[in-house]
Amino acid sequence: MENIKYKVRGKVWIGGEEGTFLGCGRVVLLERIKQHGSISKAAQSMEMSYKHAWDLVDSMNRQAKASLVITSRGGKGGGNAQVTKEGLELIDAFWNIHKKLLSFLETETKNFPY
Amino acid sequence: MENIKYKVRGKVWIGGEEGTFLGCGRVVLLERIKQHGSISKAAQSMEMSYKHAWDLVDSMNRQAKASLVITSRGGKGGGNAQVTKEGLELIDAFWNIHKKLLSFLETETKNFPY
Repeated sequence: MENIKYKVRGKVWIGGEEGTFLGCGRVVLLERIKQHGSISKAAQSMEMSYKHAWDLVDSMNRQAKASLVITSRGGKGGGNAQVTKEGLELIDAFWNIHKKLLSFLETETKNFPY
Repeated sequence: MENIKYKVRGKVWIGGEEGTFLGCGRVVLLERIKQHGSISKAAQSMEMSYKHAWDLVDSMNRQAKASLVITSRGGKGGGNAQVTKEGLELIDAFWNIHKKLLSFLETETKNFPY
């Protein structure tokens, strides 16, 4: 039996020069690229269009100090994609902040005076 | 000279039984209703349609334990609207959480390891 009726909810993202640099969806995309070694397979696994995934990767690479994803054009099967060291570090940095947000939201929900 | 290139950004809202109960826009609407004593004037001051403002007020009242806004049907000029004690308390509670979020985001931006 859940007794709390109201929940404090929230989200975080990292803003860069063009607006969003990193957010939940972008970070999950990076993780899927790492897992699949390919932007198109990563996109498929998230039911995202290849174009949208490519635009997100492009936006992250443009705003980063060094590319987060490097690609090599392949033959028939499409190219390979790799998440760089910087990309892996940013994945961790993002989830670290996200985890702190969740703990903030939990505390605020407990203390919500209504 | 601003040296920080990346900013941790975020938002909070209060979830209720139907989804969003209170968020930044809804709380500002409550403040404007308090200020103007009228939903239509409050809506106008935010360049929001009367219908949208009314829907938001209705959604808040439905999900609250007691109405946050009470209205009386008027004549030609439309009715009056008043924010209740519960509404005023929730305005404060929301900005209080919002303030803490801003301080969280500031800290995380300072510590952002990139």
